[in-house]
Amino acid sequence: MERNNGSQTATWIWYPGDFEIRLHEKMSVKRKARDVMYPAFWRLDRHYSNVRFRCTYDLPQEEQIRILAEGTFSLYLDGKDNYRSDDSVYTLPAGRHEITVSVFNDVEVPALYIEGTNFRTGTCWEANSYQNDWVAAGSWTFDSPQDRPSRFRLAVTPQEPAAVEIRDGHPLLDFGRETFGYLRFHNLQGSGKVRIYYGESEAEALSPDKCYNLDRFEAGAAAVRANDGIFTLEDAKAFRYVWIHADPGVSWDRVSMLYEYVPVTYRSTFECSDPKLNEIYDMGLYTLHLNSREFYLDGIKRDRWVWSGDAYQAFLMNYYSFFDLDVTRRTLIALRGKDPLTMHFNTILDYSLYWFVSLYDYYLYTGDFAFIRQYYDRAATLMDFILKQRNEEGMLEGRPQDWVFVDWADFKNNGAVSTIQILLARSLEAMSMFAGQMGEEEEAASYGMLAEELKEKTMRLFWDDEKGGLLHHRVDGVTQPTLTKHAGMFAMTFDYLTPEQRESVVRNVILNPDVPQIRTPYMRFHEMAVLCESGQHDLVREEMRSYWGGMIALGATTFWEEYDPALADDAHYDMYGVPFGKSLCHAWGAGPVYLFGKYYLGVKPLSPGYETFVVEPRLGGLEWMKGKLPLGPGDAEVEMDERRIRVRATHGKGVLRYEKDGQTLEASIPVDGSWLEIEI
Amino acid sequence: MERNNGSQTATWIWYPGDFEIRLHEKMSVKRKARDVMYPAFWRLDRHYSNVRFRCTYDLPQEEQIRILAEGTFSLYLDGKDNYRSDDSVYTLPAGRHEITVSVFNDVEVPALYIEGTNFRTGTCWEANSYQNDWVAAGSWTFDSPQDRPSRFRLAVTPQEPAAVEIRDGHPLLDFGRETFGYLRFHNLQGSGKVRIYYGESEAEALSPDKCYNLDRFEAGAAAVRANDGIFTLEDAKAFRYVWIHADPGVSWDRVSMLYEYVPVTYRSTFECSDPKLNEIYDMGLYTLHLNSREFYLDGIKRDRWVWSGDAYQAFLMNYYSFFDLDVTRRTLIALRGKDPLTMHFNTILDYSLYWFVSLYDYYLYTGDFAFIRQYYDRAATLMDFILKQRNEEGMLEGRPQDWVFVDWADFKNNGAVSTIQILLARSLEAMSMFAGQMGEEEEAASYGMLAEELKEKTMRLFWDDEKGGLLHHRVDGVTQPTLTKHAGMFAMTFDYLTPEQRESVVRNVILNPDVPQIRTPYMRFHEMAVLCESGQHDLVREEMRSYWGGMIALGATTFWEEYDPALADDAHYDMYGVPFGKSLCHAWGAGPVYLFGKYYLGVKPLSPGYETFVVEPRLGGLEWMKGKLPLGPGDAEVEMDERRIRVRATHGKGVLRYEKDGQTLEASIPVDGSWLEIEI
Repeated sequence: MERNNGSQTATWIWYPGDFEIRLHEKMSVKRKARDVMYPAFWRLDRHYSNVRFRCTYDLPQEEQIRILAEGTFSLYLDGKDNYRSDDSVYTLPAGRHEITVSVFNDVEVPALYIEGTNFRTGTCWEANSYQNDWVAAGSWTFDSPQDRPSRFRLAVTPQEPAAVEIRDGHPLLDFGRETFGYLRFHNLQGSGKVRIYYGESEAEALSPDKCYNLDRFEAGAAAVRANDGIFTLEDAKAFRYVWIHADPGVSWDRVSMLYEYVPVTYRSTFECSDPKLNEIYDMGLYTLHLNSREFYLDGIKRDRWVWSGDAYQAFLMNYYSFFDLDVTRRTLIALRGKDPLTMHFNTILDYSLYWFVSLYDYYLYTGDFAFIRQYYDRAATLMDFILKQRNEEGMLEGRPQDWVFVDWADFKNNGAVSTIQILLARSLEAMSMFAGQMGEEEEAASYGMLAEELKEKTMRLFWDDEKGGLLHHRVDGVTQPTLTKHAGMFAMTFDYLTPEQRESVVRNVILNPDVPQIRTPYMRFHEMAVLCESGQHDLVREEMRSYWGGMIALGATTFWEEYDPALADDAHYDMYGVPFGKSLCHAWGAGPVYLFGKYYLGVKPLSPGYETFVVEPRLGGLEWMKGKLPLGPGDAEVEMDERRIRVRATHGKGVLRYEKDGQTLEASIPVDGSWLEIEI
Repeated sequence: MERNNGSQTATWIWYPGDFEIRLHEKMSVKRKARDVMYPAFWRLDRHYSNVRFRCTYDLPQEEQIRILAEGTFSLYLDGKDNYRSDDSVYTLPAGRHEITVSVFNDVEVPALYIEGTNFRTGTCWEANSYQNDWVAAGSWTFDSPQDRPSRFRLAVTPQEPAAVEIRDGHPLLDFGRETFGYLRFHNLQGSGKVRIYYGESEAEALSPDKCYNLDRFEAGAAAVRANDGIFTLEDAKAFRYVWIHADPGVSWDRVSMLYEYVPVTYRSTFECSDPKLNEIYDMGLYTLHLNSREFYLDGIKRDRWVWSGDAYQAFLMNYYSFFDLDVTRRTLIALRGKDPLTMHFNTILDYSLYWFVSLYDYYLYTGDFAFIRQYYDRAATLMDFILKQRNEEGMLEGRPQDWVFVDWADFKNNGAVSTIQILLARSLEAMSMFAGQMGEEEEAASYGMLAEELKEKTMRLFWDDEKGGLLHHRVDGVTQPTLTKHAGMFAMTFDYLTPEQRESVVRNVILNPDVPQIRTPYMRFHEMAVLCESGQHDLVREEMRSYWGGMIALGATTFWEEYDPALADDAHYDMYGVPFGKSLCHAWGAGPVYLFGKYYLGVKPLSPGYETFVVEPRLGGLEWMKGKLPLGPGDAEVEMDERRIRVRATHGKGVLRYEKDGQTLEASIPVDGSWLEIEI
């Protein structure tokens, strides 16, 4: 999966991770609440300002190179650091030499670009932060002198409003559906104040005193900054509607916007006999796309932050849709940040653990071990940090400063929470696998043993035979009687339960109306997955129709942070005690993308990078369905109705599996990309 | 000693240490070698970009406040972080409330200034980096809205050259003595290149191809940037001479400079019967002053970096001269930097240890425990880091990535070096004392016990009865036979030796011509101090006359990094294989300032902040001497000739002590500031 910086093209290089960490620092303060900055409430890590790069070359003859840096630089040869040059053109002597370049930049990431006929910046280079840490330099697709890392911006394209009408004397623009970008005023004239009220809903835009996002500018000053007669607002916002109030004397020809986005490819499709589900699927894709940006965000209006638990789900949805690994990698790097580790990711204990599970999934879906290798040390030190927090029973507990989240729900998370132990066990399994692949046998065994011990202990201490599920937490050495769904769900997902236990968890916990219901789409994501894994596709389909379909019925064009059918009208839009505080375009709302791909079309990797995979399609009450899914570099296509299944794939070694009347049908999928068809 | 930010003046506040750490980052890249950047070769720590401040107030009535921030800010009351304001004027409601202000700044340090009639930024405020770390906010003397921390600059004042002559057709300016600052061209005219060759020596300025510092600019472009007809160069440099080459057609009226300096008070004086020593003393003061800048530098031409071992000596000299605590505190904070601790200060193991000894001295000389308290946690975590590096015998060893320096000398520093153990023991004693003052009895006892064990072990394993001193190092459990002066010197200074051992170290090691001689002024500083402590004042006086006097005889106007009388002419100026690589204004060259104050005038604190002190004057072969020294807030004056001693002091409880014919005379110094006079 790694882009190959071969010898033919020079590319900008930097200290690995620093591009992503700097970008994350910038993006984490983009959120505004009523035009007032609202920064992320965790430590924002920063790039190293003082770094150096080195590379050893062997040239048959001297060669002139051109050197560009983001920052001030100096170079020297063969360790002679008292003899430096900062000329932008330099002649490398022939023979074998080591070139070192110091770069300092305290604003943007120190980066280096060298081009010569035979010698240039690329994969042979190492970077160093003066901590005894010569490591492979970071790079991406910045392959020309002017394509500087600090200038990285997402793509933009113009969009026009779908409708404009006048409300109370002010134009209300409707862009037809939720979008994100920069408003533009064409031919702005006159002087006076302009106030813009944004709304994800019409009600929000029409509430100048309560809408979450607003903008204010002075028309005269703005017109001066126009390009080609167009004044573009500086900050991008999430909205569908805008209501524009201007002082008398201010005018413009029209208002449009620059839609800002990551240019992903929509690699997946899903179509079935139920048009409502098709609509849900497509809206899920769009919801996910809007939240796939510099990083996976929780929501594009609020918080516009990178949350590990939210990203964990977005990663999974992405593998079943765009399969864009750039956003994934940037997000994983930004979440890990730098040392010292003092607080958990986003201040949440569980969110540090989701990172390991996400890394595990990354490897499983992509097979890209080079990325894991580059960040293995950061994973290992994070695990060290976490393991120090185990109590005397060896169970992971939150410290007073930690937020143990699990879910928005009415239960206490003090003591050792079973869900946390299961996430830690999975994290240890991931580390064991990574260590093994790194050739670190001892560490692999050690992590593996810790995982086994923890799983055994967790099942022994939390499993309640009478209640038929995992109890919620254990305080001061005593397991408390609270029964919740969460631990059971994760234990099923990670395959930690016996068939009997699985069956019991589904019947006695997940489907038990006396166990507290899950109300957040965040945990419903996992609940739906678990129900699918138990073959409850019919139920899941009905749930999707009512829950996601319910939002559409209320006019949603993207899926929300939370949805409670019991609420009336505009009450849907409040959250956290804030009018219009609810995000109406929230990544975790896009769960159907994952569910349809993984559990209906049924495509799942069996080994890293889909080298082997299985297709287990389930109609779950549909008359027919068909769709396409990415298999890393290739694709799988699945078609199914009540009579037959057709599958073809252009990558890996796949097997079609179908259960009928207690029998399992299995057939190999042709490696030549031709269709496999079976009658059922 | 702490400046009191009382309730009457608003002041800028920030996360503690970040002002100093950001300033250090900027200054650490000011060094240039032949106009090419040469950054410090250690990790440069960075300020937190995302911080928040809080304060609880209780106002009888509402109050309007004005808010200024370096960076973007938002404030909220009583934890209601969804309701924020970024108005620059805000009305605080009456009653008891908590105000929180978020500030983000990724270029300069996030800082906050609030002024109201009764409420303002000051000592009541706390700062937080989102790491569960509400700590007292940092502040200094930035007490007005426009006096922003990011704009901090040292003072400047114009200086004119002492002489100008033409050499090879180009003007050579002599500023009379070593100086530091910005060259200025008055009424620059014409167009063409101007090249400036700087020299700490005339030979250096006259060597365009080899001088360490140079500047180049285009006259036309420069003239445009002139203010009031004066073009001032952007970067300050160290020099006495400048040789200016300009293309034909470029002209100017005259060249002067802006001398840049910390406005210290010369609080000490020393005068004696030997004019050469008086000259040495005054030149020492000037050398120290030039190196007392944003931080204590090693040298003003090279490296212009903050080195812990160098600063340790500058701190001591400062206590006996300017008693400027701002430069001291800034230097201590910058050296400690931030976590994670991966490398030692300046990459040198001993340099981490000198920091503790420096902190101990700081408290002893100033009595300012508030500063120690603020940085106690950073000291404790540094000690944790260091203690992890002990070998199985409990001795501190360098890791492969560590530089174990001790001194520029021909001995190996592998294994456990005795000097390192002694510095660690002293560091542990310092931590024990700090912990005790913090009320951390358990930690105090633990550090104290570690110190005692280490001292006992060090004396047992390194003391050689036959050689009468401490051996140098121990490799794989075997003490090696090398005898060096260093461990003995520090053991004497820290009072770790019995009277018999002291006497033996002086006779068998320090004064033994067969033990490798110390050649660096860096370690001669300690050697001279130890000789004085052994009553060898005559010898030290002769050494000062020949070593420091030798530099003056060669035309020095400030003291050098190194001096070898055996060298001829311009050979003095080379170092590290670099022509003119030697620094001719090096802080550690100013040692006589400390020696005359502490060991001739003989003023020493006995308890923190000179609450009690002793004056033990020694003529050491002089006919007479007199001088003045700071005692923290007060001063001591001492006059002595062969017949009598006169002392007076305006602070603390002092005792005059004088040994004569094996008898010790002691007399209390009047607390009313009047003179005490004794016949001797």
